[in-house]
Amino acid sequence: MLSFREALDLLLRHTPLLAAQSCRIEQAAGRVLREEIRADRNFPPFDRVMMDGYALCMADWQTGHRTFRVTGCAPAGQPTVDLSDEAGACVEVMTGAPLPVGADCIVPLEEVTRPATGEIRIDDSFEAVAGRFIHPAASDAPAGTLLLRPGVLLGSREIGVAASCGAAVLEVSRMPKIAVIATGDELVAVDESPAAHQIRQSNAHAIGCALHRAGYQVSHVGTLGDDNGSSMQVLLETLAGCEWLVLTGAVSKGARDFLPGMLNAMGCTRLFHGVAQRPGKPAGCWIGPGGQVIMALPGNPVSALTGLHAFVMPALAVASGLPVPTRRRVIPTDEIAGLPGLTHHLPVTLRDDGRAEAAATGNSGDFIGLLRSDGFVTLPPRSDIPGISAALPFTPWI
Amino acid sequence: MLSFREALDLLLRHTPLLAAQSCRIEQAAGRVLREEIRADRNFPPFDRVMMDGYALCMADWQTGHRTFRVTGCAPAGQPTVDLSDEAGACVEVMTGAPLPVGADCIVPLEEVTRPATGEIRIDDSFEAVAGRFIHPAASDAPAGTLLLRPGVLLGSREIGVAASCGAAVLEVSRMPKIAVIATGDELVAVDESPAAHQIRQSNAHAIGCALHRAGYQVSHVGTLGDDNGSSMQVLLETLAGCEWLVLTGAVSKGARDFLPGMLNAMGCTRLFHGVAQRPGKPAGCWIGPGGQVIMALPGNPVSALTGLHAFVMPALAVASGLPVPTRRRVIPTDEIAGLPGLTHHLPVTLRDDGRAEAAATGNSGDFIGLLRSDGFVTLPPRSDIPGISAALPFTPWI
Repeated sequence: MLSFREALDLLLRHTPLLAAQSCRIEQAAGRVLREEIRADRNFPPFDRVMMDGYALCMADWQTGHRTFRVTGCAPAGQPTVDLSDEAGACVEVMTGAPLPVGADCIVPLEEVTRPATGEIRIDDSFEAVAGRFIHPAASDAPAGTLLLRPGVLLGSREIGVAASCGAAVLEVSRMPKIAVIATGDELVAVDESPAAHQIRQSNAHAIGCALHRAGYQVSHVGTLGDDNGSSMQVLLETLAGCEWLVLTGAVSKGARDFLPGMLNAMGCTRLFHGVAQRPGKPAGCWIGPGGQVIMALPGNPVSALTGLHAFVMPALAVASGLPVPTRRRVIPTDEIAGLPGLTHHLPVTLRDDGRAEAAATGNSGDFIGLLRSDGFVTLPPRSDIPGISAALPFTPWI
Repeated sequence: MLSFREALDLLLRHTPLLAAQSCRIEQAAGRVLREEIRADRNFPPFDRVMMDGYALCMADWQTGHRTFRVTGCAPAGQPTVDLSDEAGACVEVMTGAPLPVGADCIVPLEEVTRPATGEIRIDDSFEAVAGRFIHPAASDAPAGTLLLRPGVLLGSREIGVAASCGAAVLEVSRMPKIAVIATGDELVAVDESPAAHQIRQSNAHAIGCALHRAGYQVSHVGTLGDDNGSSMQVLLETLAGCEWLVLTGAVSKGARDFLPGMLNAMGCTRLFHGVAQRPGKPAGCWIGPGGQVIMALPGNPVSALTGLHAFVMPALAVASGLPVPTRRRVIPTDEIAGLPGLTHHLPVTLRDDGRAEAAATGNSGDFIGLLRSDGFVTLPPRSDIPGISAALPFTPWI
């Protein structure tokens, strides 16, 4: 049986990179960039005024000028104006305007009085400093600077930078086509009234929600009874329309666990089946005939959701061109002992001080108990070290 | 001038709660629940078998029985069967099946051999334990238990629990209608080629992206030149179609900062204008004639994005019925000094050990520099304490 680490590495190595496609910037939030974005001009493109006030020449102030004639106005959005060559001239400037040519000093509005029309007097207390309140051209990035690399997630900052560079259309990773199917004869739909021996299907809802919240679209969500003759046909049809298939249930070694055998019979290639972890030991992964990634998770809701977070989410990130996600590390409140031979995905709550406390959740069938946790830490198998108090990778529930 | 804390509290107190609406569970990911969800039956609804194997009566094992007749089969999804009253009987059981009536002990598949058809022999090494591998009815939650409260964000766990309870349609907060308008004569659209003195509009793109990533829809994104006669009309029309309006630029005290005066003239009520914070001191908030919340942020991109995260995001959460978000706290790598009299939203990068390091970003016009940070910590104004090394609230860039 593979270790959790080995199984995840195997999955990530077999995760195909999605193709790129063009996308308008207005639709690109949360997508993964697949091209370089370079500064198309200097940033800022001109010496930018950072303060409403008056632009003047430092040399004038140094030679004792305190009263200046206002010879012009430079609002933002107007071409650059010239400061008069004559001593004692200044230009009224607005935040965001290009600095008038010949000026090298800004005196803020609140540091002057206006003794007469077209004239300002600088307060005696004001100490002029050359270049202050001026954002020099090209100081953030000269034209041609690489600003965004392929493989970056397009968040608000990246979108702002791309817009500044005129990247109205961006090359981004195509969204994967994902199908989710929950299996089990005991399952009824959320709209149905279950008989005493039945339960409502919840796994596909929970998994669909997590994928949606992570920014993916789920093209197909279904339920499948245990093998009833038509199951293989349903799976083949689903595979024909998707690139990723997340299955829950029927993946263990019992008489009704039809999935491993059926996937093999359908020509899928097994990457692994069984992982030295708790919960979710029966989890398996197959590659479909068309290169689809098929992740089969156990049917109990805690194992299914943990497996989604531990395997499917990092793999979908890699498929989109992102680096393997690094998880935030949290320090446990108490020493936590790993399990012999098994990686343990242990639900925890985060305290106000940021430390992780093992959550009082029930067994792997207790989905409700997960509401009392914020996520899980992943503990390596217990070795000679009896307990772990070092920082552990933490995965928040999405 | 209000402190950051006072300004935020004022905004949150004036944030109207959005109405509730019905939503199918398949569309409810990330929405805020506005009703109670109670267990509609016991969870689990029956004594649930947790392991493929054989169910038998502990008393039989205790009286020395090791060979059992298999008198029936209990797969998941079938009505509960009875264990024969005769001593030495057992029922084959599958994970997820209801425990046969009369059985109180599960022997896993791998602990038995099958000496003859219809017969199993329990390995001598196996130690039977009553109740093990049985998930008792109602042990997670008895029928009627309050499972989800109003004001909870519907993530994957909550959606799974709601599905289990048959909540096919959920009462959730309506989505707010949000408009975003960037102002400034210097701005040109992302598709246009700016002249030397112009820059491309990026704030509305960045803000729209952040709102989208936080799960909101932005109904209107626009750009407005500095007051050109028709600005008030545009603002009135925008207000008529939205509940939240985020503006950038023209909010300071300069000659071209037309927004404060225009909003007052439009009959908006000022909540605050000017906040003792850096960046973003000129930020203001007004309540529109129809109760709209109007947040006016400075035009420089760093101030605009910081203000969005610091004011608009928490307020939208509260509007949706969530509690005021608590921010994760991070410990700075070095003592950080606050600013005298100003709250400082300081961009930081998070190191691998989770500590926050002040990021090498430029001035508030340097949007590109923000790419080198992961978010910002919010430092209280400097008091007698020269530096802070305690945990600080951290806001990640979205």
